[in-house]
Amino acid sequence: MSSRIEPLRGLLEEPFLITNPVNVLYLTGLDSSNVALVVEPDRARLFTDFRYIEAARAVEGVEAVQTKRTLIGWLGENLSGRFGFEANILPWSFAEDLRKAGLELVPRKGLVEQLRAVKDEGELEAFRRACAITDRMFERLASEVSFVGRRERDVAWDITRLYHEEGADEPAFESIVGSGPTGARPHARAGDRVISPGELVVIDTGCKVGGYQSDYTRTLATGDLDGELREAYDVVLAAQHAGLEAIRAGVSGVDVDAAARGVIEASEFAGTFGHGLGHGLGLDVHEAPRLSTESSDTLAAGNVVTVEPGVYLKGRFGIRIEDDVIVTEDGIENPVRFTKELLTVG
Amino acid sequence: MSSRIEPLRGLLEEPFLITNPVNVLYLTGLDSSNVALVVEPDRARLFTDFRYIEAARAVEGVEAVQTKRTLIGWLGENLSGRFGFEANILPWSFAEDLRKAGLELVPRKGLVEQLRAVKDEGELEAFRRACAITDRMFERLASEVSFVGRRERDVAWDITRLYHEEGADEPAFESIVGSGPTGARPHARAGDRVISPGELVVIDTGCKVGGYQSDYTRTLATGDLDGELREAYDVVLAAQHAGLEAIRAGVSGVDVDAAARGVIEASEFAGTFGHGLGHGLGLDVHEAPRLSTESSDTLAAGNVVTVEPGVYLKGRFGIRIEDDVIVTEDGIENPVRFTKELLTVG
Repeated sequence: MSSRIEPLRGLLEEPFLITNPVNVLYLTGLDSSNVALVVEPDRARLFTDFRYIEAARAVEGVEAVQTKRTLIGWLGENLSGRFGFEANILPWSFAEDLRKAGLELVPRKGLVEQLRAVKDEGELEAFRRACAITDRMFERLASEVSFVGRRERDVAWDITRLYHEEGADEPAFESIVGSGPTGARPHARAGDRVISPGELVVIDTGCKVGGYQSDYTRTLATGDLDGELREAYDVVLAAQHAGLEAIRAGVSGVDVDAAARGVIEASEFAGTFGHGLGHGLGLDVHEAPRLSTESSDTLAAGNVVTVEPGVYLKGRFGIRIEDDVIVTEDGIENPVRFTKELLTVG
Repeated sequence: MSSRIEPLRGLLEEPFLITNPVNVLYLTGLDSSNVALVVEPDRARLFTDFRYIEAARAVEGVEAVQTKRTLIGWLGENLSGRFGFEANILPWSFAEDLRKAGLELVPRKGLVEQLRAVKDEGELEAFRRACAITDRMFERLASEVSFVGRRERDVAWDITRLYHEEGADEPAFESIVGSGPTGARPHARAGDRVISPGELVVIDTGCKVGGYQSDYTRTLATGDLDGELREAYDVVLAAQHAGLEAIRAGVSGVDVDAAARGVIEASEFAGTFGHGLGHGLGLDVHEAPRLSTESSDTLAAGNVVTVEPGVYLKGRFGIRIEDDVIVTEDGIENPVRFTKELLTVG
């Protein structure tokens, strides 16, 4: 893991204090909720408390230092000099405490996140394994699991169970199972609503393998649909294809979003796609780069992004279709195999 | 939920900007990852993006306002005047962005956390239900599940499955199953180690019901133990009793910690209990008040705290015993029923 500290050094103008636990995990492999890493030209020090110190000492290429449980307070007492810090992460009062303790702090933003956005081959392999398990989960979900007459939360449990049976480390996040009108709320959880025949069910789910995650959405039908629902499905699918087609290294997140959004805006469902098209995916389920109208990112080869347009009709239904793809110089590698044709489940 | 905003108003000297999503959940019932609440004497405004706005509009007693996805940026453009803010939560750069946008910011710390630390009857009921489910999970784990010859992660899956079968909403956190030497690392996850006969297995686990969680630890034996292990178990159990005995409203977190710690320090296992005795438990699995050598908290009736002393012998074994109790004026209510006698499992 210390091979990831070296590229970070190239971005630094002063010693750098890293307090985002996920960034420390990325740089060192240590998974601790109470941790800091200080990277200097000639050394890297890994600070954590008693609970994690044994694991910290096993990290190669860093000096492990045991702190009190109140880690920032301890750092204020034991460090001195000038440090860059993760200004988009460190709470305001912790920065103030360090300043009052005499440290000179230079705000820096997104340095480790920028490295994390471009995945190496080991990270991509874990991601592809997560996708393969998610494909098998969806195949079994569509063929083995009953939907009609069961609660959304019962289907969500089946998803958790299938991930386990297929060898995932754990679910990546709490699965969304949004049936009928619930599907119109993009982030509704799986609840007590009983799934009826002839409606749409939005399933947004992913699993973790070796720290890396998948994040798929499919919208399944529970019987014959009326013409408007089928039409909306086709619009979302066309928008998703347009988004995938637009992706390659060098394209902006705004432009990829626009490619998909334009398809929906040109349809009778204009104005119903209220969220961004996608986000980076890695150790976090939402990370750089963003694909949205508000994005300031440009895609690079090795990015992993979701592509997830949707149509949401309040009180009636929602549709979302989401793949996760690897950005390449001239397009994408899409490891997602599960069908996007409209499937009917029982 | 708006009944929880009124007590907060009593603590405020200026309009208050709340950006901790768990604090917003506590005050409004809205569960959103991208949210802010501004509480003023005569109104409360709830800011969130498209994904959550429908749910926000359903909250009584607040005005729901839809923002862009970049919520803090949007607030900078749309708010003006003087605001208290959650200085221990808001990242440094977000506070700077708001200042640059013209807001006058007053750092405040722990105001909502202080209210959350004292649970109301509805919260305590959810907590007691989580404990009842955890009791049944442990009963079945000890009687139905095989340990010897299986991997720690397989036992962890059985715990997840049993919570589901017993009616928990979900596990509260990733269960720790630390067998033999793994148990000596207090926060080791459940891994690939195969559990052997004649060793100790530390199981630290909890479940969620209605947003509130349990957090138990039991240490089980997989066969006959040598004298030192039995002795260490008895020391930890005595320390846990001493901790429970010391708890009542008005006692400091430092003193409760000392009561339990003193038992271990007076034994041959002195110096092996490296973490704090316990923590508050509620919507978060770690919240106020703290029971530790570093705590600045004093207990109040209605607090819910864990009591979890341990002995850890590096490379050899770990033992931890943890209950969750409700602080009362003259002692505790301990809803945890599962035995603390040393159980042997197969």
